[in-house]
Amino acid sequence: MRFPKSIQNLIDQFVQFPSIGPKTAERFVFYLLGKDPSAVENLADALKALHKGAILCSRCLAFAETSPCAICSDSKRDSSIIAVIADTRALIPIESTGDYKGLYFVLGGEINPIDGIGPERLAIKQLLDRISEGTAKEIIIALNPTIEGESTALYLAKAIRSLQISVLKISRIARGLPMGADIEYADEATLGNAMKYRNEL
Amino acid sequence: MRFPKSIQNLIDQFVQFPSIGPKTAERFVFYLLGKDPSAVENLADALKALHKGAILCSRCLAFAETSPCAICSDSKRDSSIIAVIADTRALIPIESTGDYKGLYFVLGGEINPIDGIGPERLAIKQLLDRISEGTAKEIIIALNPTIEGESTALYLAKAIRSLQISVLKISRIARGLPMGADIEYADEATLGNAMKYRNEL
Repeated sequence: MRFPKSIQNLIDQFVQFPSIGPKTAERFVFYLLGKDPSAVENLADALKALHKGAILCSRCLAFAETSPCAICSDSKRDSSIIAVIADTRALIPIESTGDYKGLYFVLGGEINPIDGIGPERLAIKQLLDRISEGTAKEIIIALNPTIEGESTALYLAKAIRSLQISVLKISRIARGLPMGADIEYADEATLGNAMKYRNEL
Repeated sequence: MRFPKSIQNLIDQFVQFPSIGPKTAERFVFYLLGKDPSAVENLADALKALHKGAILCSRCLAFAETSPCAICSDSKRDSSIIAVIADTRALIPIESTGDYKGLYFVLGGEINPIDGIGPERLAIKQLLDRISEGTAKEIIIALNPTIEGESTALYLAKAIRSLQISVLKISRIARGLPMGADIEYADEATLGNAMKYRNEL
């Protein structure tokens, strides 16, 4: 006994989504079966439009509507600072702070030997070419504070330093206690970083 | 700062999926952006085919490829027994047991006042019409052992009895300990049911 083919096909597709198991995939499909066919058509149309409406910016490699993207082509942005992020998704929260006026560069991931992602899978060569243009004075490495993010940051710092651009500063977003945290409940690594990277008042 | 429209549109659609929050919806869309456009086209096509390939069986109201469905039109099935299930999804596990040879009836849900699902939202009238045909000798209520399932079962039993078909037996799938359970760790309600509905050996 199997579901009708059109149901099973869709379950098989949703099962491939990140962190979705067969039961959740089933729930998705039955949720869609309960909706109006026109709503499901809308979803199908949104999927068909996805790749057409989101292209890679040739400058920063972020998914954008235009290439170069709105940020890269904004003359009011400070082109002397480049924030290196793993993924286009990191753009939104950094932009939301309203504090950052520099440009971005999307690496396309973080070095992760377990998932088979070596440095050659990331846009490191493009980043070095971009830095070699000479306009950047500071590279902010804005990767995740995880083992993968840290080792990618170290790898990048070494590669960037090998360009021997003397005026270039390489920085990393700060590690410390998040706002609203409770020192008593902070883990050792976080609190260790907070002590080590203390700021002068 | 927002994602390109085609990305945001799709995030907005996935957010409506059951138990999917904005961050998971984002992960889905970036997972799809990382896939080949043709794979995303396949998913869109599977969505477009969903409603066309899954119609409601006019007899049992299950989603099926034909109406009447393969089970309802199978003359080897025992038409004197009807299992009432909440959802087409319950069909697969019951069929997988290989033990049940009767027919089904899909109620379309369970009474759930919190979600605003009253008896009028379920196919209760159709079920009573079906039973009134007189072929059924036993109705097995195979709903979930939850508050919603129990109250729906009681409601159904009352409605079916009001038809005053004297030969009709109404039963309910058994409550008790699941196979492999440990009595020490069973919850009170489950163990209470297991004692109350004990079977003669």
